[in-house]
Amino acid sequence: LKPVLWDGIYARGDTAAQVSDAAWLQAMLDVEAALAVAVDAPADAARQIADACRAENFDVAPLAAETARNATPVVGLVAALRDAVPESVREYVHAGATSQDIVDTALMLVARRALEPLLADARAAADHAAALARDHRHTPMIGRTLLQQALPTTFGLRAAGWLVGIDEACARLANVRSAELAVQMGGPVGGGSPRIAARLAAELGLAEPVMPWGAIRVRPANLATALGTLAGVLSKVARDVTLFSQQEVAEVAEGEAGGSSAMAHKRNPVAAVSTLACTERVPGLVAAVLGAMEQEHERAAGAWQSEWGTHTELLALTGSAAAWTETMLGGLHVDGDRMAANLAASPTADHPLPDGIQDLIDRALAAHAAA
Amino acid sequence: LKPVLWDGIYARGDTAAQVSDAAWLQAMLDVEAALAVAVDAPADAARQIADACRAENFDVAPLAAETARNATPVVGLVAALRDAVPESVREYVHAGATSQDIVDTALMLVARRALEPLLADARAAADHAAALARDHRHTPMIGRTLLQQALPTTFGLRAAGWLVGIDEACARLANVRSAELAVQMGGPVGGGSPRIAARLAAELGLAEPVMPWGAIRVRPANLATALGTLAGVLSKVARDVTLFSQQEVAEVAEGEAGGSSAMAHKRNPVAAVSTLACTERVPGLVAAVLGAMEQEHERAAGAWQSEWGTHTELLALTGSAAAWTETMLGGLHVDGDRMAANLAASPTADHPLPDGIQDLIDRALAAHAAA
Amino acid sequence: LKPVLWDGIYARGDTAAQVSDAAWLQAMLDVEAALAVAVDAPADAARQIADACRAENFDVAPLAAETARNATPVVGLVAALRDAVPESVREYVHAGATSQDIVDTALMLVARRALEPLLADARAAADHAAALARDHRHTPMIGRTLLQQALPTTFGLRAAGWLVGIDEACARLANVRSAELAVQMGGPVGGGSPRIAARLAAELGLAEPVMPWGAIRVRPANLATALGTLAGVLSKVARDVTLFSQQEVAEVAEGEAGGSSAMAHKRNPVAAVSTLACTERVPGLVAAVLGAMEQEHERAAGAWQSEWGTHTELLALTGSAAAWTETMLGGLHVDGDRMAANLAASPTADHPLPDGIQDLIDRALAAHAAA
Amino acid sequence: LKPVLWDGIYARGDTAAQVSDAAWLQAMLDVEAALAVAVDAPADAARQIADACRAENFDVAPLAAETARNATPVVGLVAALRDAVPESVREYVHAGATSQDIVDTALMLVARRALEPLLADARAAADHAAALARDHRHTPMIGRTLLQQALPTTFGLRAAGWLVGIDEACARLANVRSAELAVQMGGPVGGGSPRIAARLAAELGLAEPVMPWGAIRVRPANLATALGTLAGVLSKVARDVTLFSQQEVAEVAEGEAGGSSAMAHKRNPVAAVSTLACTERVPGLVAAVLGAMEQEHERAAGAWQSEWGTHTELLALTGSAAAWTETMLGGLHVDGDRMAANLAASPTADHPLPDGIQDLIDRALAAHAAA
Repeated sequence: LKPVLWDGIYARGDTAAQVSDAAWLQAMLDVEAALAVAVDAPADAARQIADACRAENFDVAPLAAETARNATPVVGLVAALRDAVPESVREYVHAGATSQDIVDTALMLVARRALEPLLADARAAADHAAALARDHRHTPMIGRTLLQQALPTTFGLRAAGWLVGIDEACARLANVRSAELAVQMGGPVGGGSPRIAARLAAELGLAEPVMPWGAIRVRPANLATALGTLAGVLSKVARDVTLFSQQEVAEVAEGEAGGSSAMAHKRNPVAAVSTLACTERVPGLVAAVLGAMEQEHERAAGAWQSEWGTHTELLALTGSAAAWTETMLGGLHVDGDRMAANLAASPTADHPLPDGIQDLIDRALAAHAAA
Repeated sequence: LKPVLWDGIYARGDTAAQVSDAAWLQAMLDVEAALAVAVDAPADAARQIADACRAENFDVAPLAAETARNATPVVGLVAALRDAVPESVREYVHAGATSQDIVDTALMLVARRALEPLLADARAAADHAAALARDHRHTPMIGRTLLQQALPTTFGLRAAGWLVGIDEACARLANVRSAELAVQMGGPVGGGSPRIAARLAAELGLAEPVMPWGAIRVRPANLATALGTLAGVLSKVARDVTLFSQQEVAEVAEGEAGGSSAMAHKRNPVAAVSTLACTERVPGLVAAVLGAMEQEHERAAGAWQSEWGTHTELLALTGSAAAWTETMLGGLHVDGDRMAANLAASPTADHPLPDGIQDLIDRALAAHAAA
Repeated sequence: LKPVLWDGIYARGDTAAQVSDAAWLQAMLDVEAALAVAVDAPADAARQIADACRAENFDVAPLAAETARNATPVVGLVAALRDAVPESVREYVHAGATSQDIVDTALMLVARRALEPLLADARAAADHAAALARDHRHTPMIGRTLLQQALPTTFGLRAAGWLVGIDEACARLANVRSAELAVQMGGPVGGGSPRIAARLAAELGLAEPVMPWGAIRVRPANLATALGTLAGVLSKVARDVTLFSQQEVAEVAEGEAGGSSAMAHKRNPVAAVSTLACTERVPGLVAAVLGAMEQEHERAAGAWQSEWGTHTELLALTGSAAAWTETMLGGLHVDGDRMAANLAASPTADHPLPDGIQDLIDRALAAHAAA
Repeated sequence: LKPVLWDGIYARGDTAAQVSDAAWLQAMLDVEAALAVAVDAPADAARQIADACRAENFDVAPLAAETARNATPVVGLVAALRDAVPESVREYVHAGATSQDIVDTALMLVARRALEPLLADARAAADHAAALARDHRHTPMIGRTLLQQALPTTFGLRAAGWLVGIDEACARLANVRSAELAVQMGGPVGGGSPRIAARLAAELGLAEPVMPWGAIRVRPANLATALGTLAGVLSKVARDVTLFSQQEVAEVAEGEAGGSSAMAHKRNPVAAVSTLACTERVPGLVAAVLGAMEQEHERAAGAWQSEWGTHTELLALTGSAAAWTETMLGGLHVDGDRMAANLAASPTADHPLPDGIQDLIDRALAAHAAA
């Protein structure tokens, strides 16, 4: 049995598939294939290596066993890859590279690929938030601070806040994707030629770093923290939806509410709950990545190897939260009548709306359009 | 492809199998089967339900899909289970229970089962530490504080410290296992009969709580923190082994050192590195469980659902660290000559050994024998 | 200016005073004074040392400067203490001890002292919860799962759940206090005589460990995790109070609600908010303590020194949360009429109350009485 | 007694003073003063308010008491400020603002001010790393992976890695400082006029956000995560220094090593240890900020109020780590002879140096010069 039991919650959308074993394996193989080009292997050899570098040609189980022997999957993978190519081209396989070059560059590739559906889902969620902001710019409701009714606002302004939050977190993450995902190519102790790194970067469409960054984990940290920030924004949106969905408030409802094993009448805000189920797991994972920056000498004994599982979880969970948010906001029923009734029953029903609401919504929509 | 690529590091030993999908599914089914007995279903009905409650009879994929619809796997599971039994006994399936009863009691079962190999591996590691303490009680070495040579000690005393740490962390975890893993049986809002809970506890061999604890997460927190403490002790042992294994120190070496994809001469302390790869992921997971204690009303909207993945990881990673430590200590080569040489070269070579060493080792061994 | 600006929130009650500089300093001096007795200093010398060991005799600023020079306050403190006693008794000051012995044993003393008001406040909060459970055992209300109205329960059952949670977390913490706070007395490399440790333990009223635990951090971890678990329970209670206090629900209100700088009508649930302000800081601190268990050799280079600030924060914040919870529950207004009205308006108003409620409340009260 | 006992370790340099009570109070008063200008108070009134807005005019103790009453210091502060100005100008005090506007904008001011010494210390540390890279570009040493000797490199390349790491983390943090620290000015429910926010931003030299961000915590998260990333880089540098400083390696030594209370011969790497004492506390704090992004409605009940203490610690600790690193690298003794000897004794002594070393060092230095 594959561990998919909880995937309905933790692995919604298309991000999880980009951090699967197959995805990681293919990314490592892509690095090996590109490396052959970068080190100027004869065109034939490079092509033969590229042909061999298909995840489906490799059996993961023995690689996992080799991983246990070496604390890296690369020793076993390189051996299997050398076995898979003609003897004459073996010298061009993994030439000048070390395990860390392959795994770290693969991490960057995996991240770039996983961020595509992740950002697409987050941006689709932002589009829904923009539509809510636009459609409800004049829908009055009571604002709430410290969970107490405060003064009137509009639902459109609330949605505009969600929109700006998602947009700003996506902008940071998109910048990480385009500018900070760089090849790691340093060879055994990090002194590899920058020319080869540059060629590898060009082959793989990744950035070229100032120098190999094997034990200097700014890039993985930037990735993890940008994910953590987006997850945090999504948690805020989902928390609001759960609060609005209380029957005593009843100002919004999810499009497809879920059932209960014991209470047929329940209409649970499943998308919001699932978003939160993902996002509440994220801060501890970010802390694990930051804590793992304390890496010894040219390659760490433990901290580096701890990152692989953590990044996998971070990408999958944040991606799932983005997909759930897209579902949640895309199907949101907004009950303007109930908002009006709740407002009318509040102690400040007659208080005028704040001056800036329409301007602020316009600014949020304009920033979104420009994003 | 199953996500086993990193399992060589993160899932050593037999613990991971106890937190697999199959294990979780079987635990939920075991709860359903025991529940039928606890609610006094006719013996025939209870037997028919028990017969149906085998994980291999259920397909996980559709359950995962139902999980996505309901933010719990139980709605789908109960429906499938009802389909799998004769119509006449359906009323006894899931009688009086709610999703949380099934998942939380299953968590307790999963934990109890997973802690068996986990504690066995940790205790085997402690046995190895005890043997090292005994064998090297008179093997002098230089003690080191702040990574600086300090004063003489013996390697046996160091191993005795490891021993006591593992033993004390195991004692706490064993106590959690025997006394704090309790059934959760409260029905929809936590007011279920204590008599049924008591019978369920007896059926499943779990403790009987004062009352249903659905939104009161002391038990999951006790489990998570006891795991975190053991993982912390194991990280200390592994860190020491990596430091001792430096060629410049060379006082211990692992039995089966690992290779490198680039450097044939390398003998990497793979077990210590893998232990640390697991343990460095743990504190953030414990924080996630503690953070998730902030649960709303009778059942939380998000925090509860976040726990399932976190506990799964926590058990698997701590179990893997225990298995790696068992391997590491079981095969440890101790180089007494090198210890003597390093000590002789230290600035305090002539300083006498501390008075208490032999007494302390005896105390550690006696405590271990009594554990 | 002392950093008290936020203390109104983060340092309520009497716990914070037990983790102040003065408290830490006195604890270290108490260890030095007890040590003189433990090492059999002549009675006169021991008395002269004890007389000198008063925090008010020492100036913290130069100690802080010495801390910066040595990464420990003890070098400076011992020098100052030796200066403060007659030359003839100086040899008995700090005899056989190392910095870690003093700081770690002081940590245990600080914890024991801080846990006294902390547990008193938590138990007073539990007493209030017990009174609520008793007074409202028959006060019907709608139960809520996933923030949705579910089925009827009573407010007394909810309060009983709070009660059991606080009681169980306190029981664990009280056990840590009485059984796991042990002297650390190992001398430079952890090989000090167990006889001296035993005498020191007797002098200070702390437990006697199997052996010195300087780099084996099970005890600090047990302290931190027990605090984290109590904080988690308190966060649950406070979250419930904020949700009940929403005007749309209005089933409970704090006795002394707070104001707003902009909205005169606001009645904010200040105690619940302040409890949460404290508790949300706790899981990350617990993770820091667990992460710091990876300590090198006989004394760590960094991880150990990181703990001092973290434990100080952990005790102060959990203590403040306990004091806030005591205030919150002690003054809670419960609006049974509103509970009845909300229940009547729910889709399951006619559903009978669960069978077990009265039994469960009795069990919770009995367990509390026995605690 | 002020809590300065541990400040020798946790509060080195000038950053801590920028997060003191006085600094926070002054920042809140600066916001109030600027607000009077932004809302077009008559010039005289604005001047009178500005004159009153000096921290030394206010007593912190009663503010702390008011903080306990309102879960915010602003209610008390505004009352005291109104008392401090002529009655005719009172209407211009705090006009249109809410507590969150003042505290959040003050947080941004505090951060901007604290980041000045923090970045200065980090950049000075980078300058030292650059000097080491330049001076030791040809100093051969053995590279080490998984704490095992690997292949030759130069110490200059190692220092260049430190340099690039610090530079890149500083670049991110500097960008947060210049572009992402924005005023929060939304009034009670976040609908305040963008024109006033723009004027306030101009007055205070902060950025102007798209809209008020009170419950959308991307900016605090960006601040916290950028601090966490810098702290992570510093932890790597300090860890390396502790490892190099082992007598068995002895390739570098700190300029001013510290003493021991028990061992006169010890030369402890105090700056590295103190750096690590700070940095190991950081990941949990970042997680707390990310976890606190889940904020309810227009203003959170607990999560927001939890941030104040956490940001204070984060800035102080990262600032202290930067100051310690500056000291550490500025005084570092590099023992090229010992590096040569260790290399000669390694199994790969005869292996040539990697090709790219000199190019990479040049690239790192050029990037630093351009930073």
